[in-house]
Order: sequence, then C-alpha cells, then structure tokens
Amino acid sequence: MKKLMLIAALLMTTLALQAQQALQFRAPVISPEINPDNTVTFRYRNPKAVSVKISGDFLPDRTVVDMVEGPDGVWSYTTAPLEGELYLYNFIVNGERRNDPANMYMNRDIATWTSFFTMSAKQGDKGWYYETHDVPHGTLLKTWYHSDKLGADRRVSIYTPPGYEKGKAKYPVLYLLHGSGGDEDAWADLGRTVQILDNLIAEGKAKPMLVVMPNGVFYNNAAPGYAVNMFQPTMANSRSDSTVEIEQSFPDLIAFVESTYRVEKGRKNRAIAGLSMGARQSCAVSRAHPGTFGYIGMFSGAVPADTPEAEAALARQMDPKVAPYLYWIGVGSADGVRVNSLKLKNYCEQKGYPVEYYESDGGHVWRNWRVYLTVFAQKIFK
Amino acid sequence: MKKLMLIAALLMTTLALQAQQALQFRAPVISPEINPDNTVTFRYRNPKAVSVKISGDFLPDRTVVDMVEGPDGVWSYTTAPLEGELYLYNFIVNGERRNDPANMYMNRDIATWTSFFTMSAKQGDKGWYYETHDVPHGTLLKTWYHSDKLGADRRVSIYTPPGYEKGKAKYPVLYLLHGSGGDEDAWADLGRTVQILDNLIAEGKAKPMLVVMPNGVFYNNAAPGYAVNMFQPTMANSRSDSTVEIEQSFPDLIAFVESTYRVEKGRKNRAIAGLSMGARQSCAVSRAHPGTFGYIGMFSGAVPADTPEAEAALARQMDPKVAPYLYWIGVGSADGVRVNSLKLKNYCEQKGYPVEYYESDGGHVWRNWRVYLTVFAQKIFK
Repeated sequence: MKKLMLIAALLMTTLALQAQQALQFRAPVISPEINPDNTVTFRYRNPKAVSVKISGDFLPDRTVVDMVEGPDGVWSYTTAPLEGELYLYNFIVNGERRNDPANMYMNRDIATWTSFFTMSAKQGDKGWYYETHDVPHGTLLKTWYHSDKLGADRRVSIYTPPGYEKGKAKYPVLYLLHGSGGDEDAWADLGRTVQILDNLIAEGKAKPMLVVMPNGVFYNNAAPGYAVNMFQPTMANSRSDSTVEIEQSFPDLIAFVESTYRVEKGRKNRAIAGLSMGARQSCAVSRAHPGTFGYIGMFSGAVPADTPEAEAALARQMDPKVAPYLYWIGVGSADGVRVNSLKLKNYCEQKGYPVEYYESDGGHVWRNWRVYLTVFAQKIFK
Repeated sequence: MKKLMLIAALLMTTLALQAQQALQFRAPVISPEINPDNTVTFRYRNPKAVSVKISGDFLPDRTVVDMVEGPDGVWSYTTAPLEGELYLYNFIVNGERRNDPANMYMNRDIATWTSFFTMSAKQGDKGWYYETHDVPHGTLLKTWYHSDKLGADRRVSIYTPPGYEKGKAKYPVLYLLHGSGGDEDAWADLGRTVQILDNLIAEGKAKPMLVVMPNGVFYNNAAPGYAVNMFQPTMANSRSDSTVEIEQSFPDLIAFVESTYRVEKGRKNRAIAGLSMGARQSCAVSRAHPGTFGYIGMFSGAVPADTPEAEAALARQMDPKVAPYLYWIGVGSADGVRVNSLKLKNYCEQKGYPVEYYESDGGHVWRNWRVYLTVFAQKIFK
C-alpha cells in the first residue's frame, strides 16, 4: 500500500517558537504531495517572486525546471510518476537556492541542507527499505571512543540490531565509512542505515549485525555541532589525505568495538565498506590489515592496484589463508570513478582473485550508496 | 578562552552534492562571525534583494532589525556584545523568512528549522555548558520500547553517562519530557542535554545518571522521519490531550528502562521533569503514581491543585511516607504560565508541602529550559 507521507495542512498554524523570534504563519500549502498515480506535486507560496524553479533528483541530470504561478501566488510543479525512492530537491527563487518551507524533512550533506521525501510505490522496492515499518527496531548509538594513534576522543555512530540489549548473542560487525567532507552522522541520516538494516533483518535477508559508522576525516573528531570546536565542513582536502591516518588508527576503533560491545571477532565476523573516500579507505584499511576483514565493499571508489606497492599489498590480502570471502565493487554507470572500479575488477580477474562487480545506473550519488548498502548487507556474514 | 565557532571561509566551494542536483557555489561570506569583543556579525550575500532583515533571540522581544547592504550585495548586521548562550536567528528576505545559507548549524523545533550558533564567553557560563568540551562523554541512544497501554512501539532517546558501557555501576534515571508538538529528539537537539550532562558530570556538579527522553505525544510514536507514517508535526491539539495517555502508559516506559539498562530503582533513584506540556505531564504522572519519583521538576508549566481531585492527588503524593525529596518549579518572569506556577507554589507553601521555586528572566523559550535543566540536574539524586 502506498504511503501518503506528508499530510495534514497546517492552516495558519502559529509557529511561535520562541517569544523573541518573529511569529511565523505558515501558508496553507501542502508540499510535497504524493498523488494517487505516484506523481508528486510541489507547491510554494510567494506572490512577490519573479521566478521560481525546482531542482530535484527525480529530474534528468542537472535539469532545473520552472514552477508555474497560479492564483494566490502559489507556484507549483508536478512530476512524472515516480518509483519508490528517497528524493532530494530544492527551490530556486529569483535565482537563489532555498529549501521547501512547507516541508520540514531535511537532510544535511556535508554543509548543505536539502529538502527530501521518501515514497514507497510498493512493499519491497527501494523506497520501502528507507522508511520505518512496523518491524522490530534496532538502536542507534552516538558515542565516543579514544584513539591513541590519533590522540583524540572521536565520535562514532553504532547500530545495534533488534534484541541486542536483552539478549546474550554476539554479533558480527560491519564498519561503514562515509565520503569526503562527510561525518559519522552521514550513513544514518542520508544512508538510512537504521531503516535498511531493520527492514532487511525483519525479512530475514540480512544477518543481525552491528554497523559501526566512524568519522573518516582524521582531523575532525566529530560531526559539526558535536565537535569541541564547531566548524563548517568542506570537501576540500579531504579527498584522500585522511587515508593513511584512518588506516593506521583503525585498530583502535576495532579494539574499542570488540571490548565494548557483544560482538564476534575474526575475519568471518568483520566487514568493511564505504562510499567514495570511504571506499578508498576500505581498500586501504583492508590491504594494510590483511586477514582482518572477511567482507570488503567499495561503493563508488575502488583503488586500482596500479603500483608495485599496491599490487603487493593486494596480493598479501588475497593470500588464500587470509583472503576475504567477498570482495565487492559497486559503481554507477555514469560515475567518473567507474574507470578505477573497472581497473581493480579487471586486475583481480586477471590475477584470479575473487571479485564481485555490481553496476547500477546513475552517478556518484547517495541513491546509489543506499542501494549498494542494501545489496551488500545481504551478502555478508553468510 | 573564547571560542570562535564558525571559522574557515569556504572560498567558492563546489557543493556538488549529487550529480542530479544543480551545482551550488557558496559565496565567500562568513556568517555568523563572533568578534573579539563578543559582538557577532551576520552576513548574507544577495545583490538582488530589496530588503533584508534579521530576527534573533539576541534582540529585544520580537524585534526585527534591518541588515545594511554593502558593496557586492553583502548585507550585514552586527550585534551588541553577547553573553555566552545558544542563539537562534533567521533572515527575512523581501518579506520571506529564510535560514542563513552560510551557516549550516540548524535546529528543528516542531516543524520549523532555525539557524543557530553557540558561544561561550568564558568557562562555566551558560553557553559553555551547551558546547562539547574535552571531557569524558556519555552516549546518546535512539531506541524503541513497547507500550502495551498505547499498543505501539515508541521511539525514545536515552543518555547514558560516561563509563556506562564498561562499568558495573547502576545509575539513577531522570525522565525528561518535551513540550507541545515536540518529540523524543527535542531535548537532545534543542536542549543540548548530552553536552549539559557531560559537562556537569565532568565538573562533579551532577551525579552520573541516565536521562530518558520519550515521545510525549501519545498519537505520535516517533519523531518525524522516524515514524511509520511520516507527518508534519504541529502544536495544535497537543497542548494537553496527551496527558492522560502518557500518565497511564508511563509504567510501561519505566518497566522498559528498568529491565533493559543498569539502573537503580525506587523513588530515590527516579526523577521526572519536563517543559511546558512536559511540565504538566510531570505533574500529572507524579500525582498519578505517588512515591514513584523522588525528584520532580516543572519547567514553565506547573499545574495548580485547584480542583478537589487535584488537591487530593497532590496530598497523596505529598504524604511524608512517599513525598518527593525535591518538588521544583522553574518559570520565566515574562512567561504567560507564570501565574499557574505561582499558584502551585503558593498552594504548596500554604499546605506545608516542600517546594522550590526558581524564576528566571524571559518567557516560554528553550534558553530558559536549558537553564532549568542545568540547575535541576545538579539538585537531584543527592
């Protein structure tokens, strides 16, 4: 059954959030509205605006389309029928980007907030996994661990599966790494990790597991708002220069997890995966610590073994005595990093190393990383 | 030492968040900027804007002031020197409210997102407690419990103190309730509960404790984005109509906490407090379950005992065999609910019931509730 996600018109609701702020009155527009035919209508009330456009990932690549002004200064746009998915969008008002003021669902990606909505066209499609359902729920922890190597307390998000608190079982652990400029909140917020894992576990499609989502930028110990010094994140300079530090300090994180939570040890019970910079870190960390991880996932960011050092490290990692059970590369057909993913895949095949390659549509985007997590999580610890 | 919180100009940082979205270039403005004299400068670049104003809780009640356009279309405003605090603000551009696009720090209150920043003028002042410092950190859990009474799984935020994971100690529990239209995320996000508790515990000013922050709107089982059906929250109809259900279902929450976490039982080890609607619920829940809570806090929302039923319930609660060790009423001098707080205080004094009354400046606002939590947390379990 389809969900109507954003209901209840707020008729002139007084948003008197605090006495010192100007009162806010919300115009009676509903936006977005998911229609019975799976089209979606966006509305924005601004009688003074000269130009209102919309940008969203339901539109073809980088398209920006005009919204049309109707009576009462309400601008609107209706999409084609959409498949189930988590969609991001924003308005462009007189040339300036802004969020949809009628929609309070927003996600932060690095330093930018974007309006979003989820829809599930039918149970079991992509969008369905990103929504909360009436299934047993795990817990999301925001906690801190100490890294001697980095000389700091660092914040980490950890998913524990349903039943963890009251049970006695030990669980395997997936270490899940974010991309450039991101932080320990990214996979839970933009990646919908909690919902995906809860739903996959409820369906029996994934093993119950812990998912450990650390901060992968070595000079940031916590997401903005939670660090000792607040800062504005940026993608600049974080493309690869955290890899060595994260690689060297990873044993501190594993030691913390394995001494603090009820988890199984050994490569059979450890997976590592990441997106973009986090994919390169998964490559590097697993090459630097052969035999540590039995399942390795590179989402849009595999590093080819194209130097003698990388070839040797990969060879050590692929030694049959310690080789991973799964070496998984996922990438979008339109992603600029596809060439490197293919290079690593081809090199592995040529060397006879086990490798799985998964290509989806689209580019270097969260909608692909949510899919890769959904696919990868079903393949590990089995 | 003063913190400069928002640093690092992002010079033309390409925010290519996703290939399908239009690229965003960020203008090189820093906003807000905390100046050495504790004034704060806000900047907003929009050469096409006709009018730009700013509203913020550093301005006198409900004032909206003009920003001044400078060269290059950058509008700016500089405050008077400010004390340490968490400040909320927004811009009003051509009559339309919007957040500061140069500041990624935003807080959601009910259905509205507002830009914020924190500053600490000196260690130990209010603002200092709301920031993360290099002290031992507790953990924030987002988990779910089942309420038979409400027939639903419900999401709850729980703070566990530093050392909880690896220790053996049992801890007392503060149940901390949000206001109308709020949810289980409010106290952690707007209330800065984690930072306040970490800092108070590090200074030895508060006992290590768990803080349990449930959803106090009985027909919402989780915050928006985490509920089975996504919804837009509203303050309408949530002013008091959850009280009976929350009162009746509270034993389900206590049973969950006491069977799941390492906590002490008995009224010596249970506190309940809340803001606004949550204050009324703290009144109601503690009257309905006399002897359950040893410490009761009403932040801007005490309910007078002005009916025979309420008088009798309060009398049962204040029976010396089960009476609370602390019955604490906090309210702002400009708050419309002050009259009820005073009524309850005066009634208690007249009856000889122990009561503590704390009056601060200002009205029905989060900056008061953070103060009340900071004060109340130091008084309980001692």
